[in-house]
Amino acid sequence: MSIIAVGSMAFDAIETPFGKVDRIIGGAATYFAYAASNFVTPIRAVSVVGNDFPEAEMAELKRRGVAVDGIEVVKDQKSFFWSGRYHLDMNTRDTLVTDLNVMGNFNPVIPDSYQGSEFLMLGNTLPSLQSSVIRQLKKRPKLIVLDTMNFWIETALPDLKETLSMVDVLMVNDSEARQLTGEYSIVKAAKKILQMGPSYLIVKKGEHGALLFHDNHVFFAPALPLEDVFDPTGAGDTFAGGFLGHLARTRDVSFENMKTAIIMGSAMASFCVEKFGPERLKEVTLQDIETRVQQFVELVQFDIDLV
Amino acid sequence: MSIIAVGSMAFDAIETPFGKVDRIIGGAATYFAYAASNFVTPIRAVSVVGNDFPEAEMAELKRRGVAVDGIEVVKDQKSFFWSGRYHLDMNTRDTLVTDLNVMGNFNPVIPDSYQGSEFLMLGNTLPSLQSSVIRQLKKRPKLIVLDTMNFWIETALPDLKETLSMVDVLMVNDSEARQLTGEYSIVKAAKKILQMGPSYLIVKKGEHGALLFHDNHVFFAPALPLEDVFDPTGAGDTFAGGFLGHLARTRDVSFENMKTAIIMGSAMASFCVEKFGPERLKEVTLQDIETRVQQFVELVQFDIDLV
Repeated sequence: MSIIAVGSMAFDAIETPFGKVDRIIGGAATYFAYAASNFVTPIRAVSVVGNDFPEAEMAELKRRGVAVDGIEVVKDQKSFFWSGRYHLDMNTRDTLVTDLNVMGNFNPVIPDSYQGSEFLMLGNTLPSLQSSVIRQLKKRPKLIVLDTMNFWIETALPDLKETLSMVDVLMVNDSEARQLTGEYSIVKAAKKILQMGPSYLIVKKGEHGALLFHDNHVFFAPALPLEDVFDPTGAGDTFAGGFLGHLARTRDVSFENMKTAIIMGSAMASFCVEKFGPERLKEVTLQDIETRVQQFVELVQFDIDLV
Repeated sequence: MSIIAVGSMAFDAIETPFGKVDRIIGGAATYFAYAASNFVTPIRAVSVVGNDFPEAEMAELKRRGVAVDGIEVVKDQKSFFWSGRYHLDMNTRDTLVTDLNVMGNFNPVIPDSYQGSEFLMLGNTLPSLQSSVIRQLKKRPKLIVLDTMNFWIETALPDLKETLSMVDVLMVNDSEARQLTGEYSIVKAAKKILQMGPSYLIVKKGEHGALLFHDNHVFFAPALPLEDVFDPTGAGDTFAGGFLGHLARTRDVSFENMKTAIIMGSAMASFCVEKFGPERLKEVTLQDIETRVQQFVELVQFDIDLV
């Protein structure tokens, strides 16, 4: 099984209540690849970087089974750079700098070697680029997952709605689900979104976990209560990597298996936030993942002895 | 098994985005009793009301197995009255009016007929009154549960700490846990609180569920995602009623059984918020509770097929 992952590869400067880093590897496709490659390979990355993206990072990704044919390297420009400062609650942040650089002309091209991939992750970018990726695929993947953000809901809603009609799973946070539908109630928002195209909706709530909606069913996965969230950057993309990685590994896109996949995503995200950038993700072993997933089982399991 | 429940019995005026009521029955002991009496009787109420508290309400409580010997009726005063307005998110509210009336001189006296009760719920009130109740009991209950609020943390911290040292379970919301410990991280706050006396800590997070901490263990119970939260007033006391009701019915105060009890509490709370005041609680049947609890099972259960 193979997954195409479209998204940014970047440098981030991050400040949290626990410290700061001036320049660390970031980007949606990077986090996704580091998470998903624990479950399945190849992860076929589609992105664009400048002349400053480290060879060593690219080599490390390759070593983990990430295909890089779809990563364009622009020789005379710099990579995307984002800088932000998190507030104490870690759910809110201020963006300090956004230097699009090479991302300003990002035009994802799917290499022939990527055709036939069974899974597609469309990381957050311009909705018209996301739909262009789908159109470039000769065979529709088994499952297409879409991420987006408030900026596109505000500035590119018609394109976003068209892209939404082409995908299977939408993955957004609670405020984006509200903004997209005008419904404050997440349950009502979910009902509306499930009529826009996706059969599945995942609503990420950060430290409050995630909800999966499908037809009239709902599943809830908690976030692991952590002593410290060190750096939440990339947690959403890491979650997506664990989620889609598990689905691809098990070749099962049923609602039941998506529940387990969300736990896998939550487990991977719980590692991600323990260190700056993707550092922690590079260290974790399959044994670490297994142990962490067991903590999720213990976190929610209870016996029912009804009244 | 019997439960003593100490707390207010009152009138509330409530305004939510969905409507308003000018005068409806409220109070911590009332909500607790309506919830807990589904599981076990007697619920032995300790409270104070004025000359305006309806006979019919008192009769209805008695019919449900609530003992009222410990409810003082003050003939020449009015019952406690609270009025509040909820914001759209239903997690925040403005208090518009607080008329203490009879609650201003509340001095709980445990009747002889209440001695020997196995469970004690200390609803939110002056910490020195809560500890006086414990001192009045000739035999220590099997389990003592304490509720409190930010006001007492700010104005009566030494008394609160003394009371905390006498109880088994503290039940607070996330902001109260933070305020009590000065720790932003709920996990760190929990560790500190578990050194103040209680062996168990329940952190209520409203629509985001509840956490149970004990030693190094943690359990998470979600809130049921609802289309509309109509009126959250009393949800916390109702949660306490379901929680303690289940423990008393099963005569089992182990950590494992507390997990199930929290699900019962969450189920009862999910009914509470569906109508103004305790109206919905008066309607629910044991069959309704069983069906609702099954929804919680479906909400969180997943299969694990490890990596």
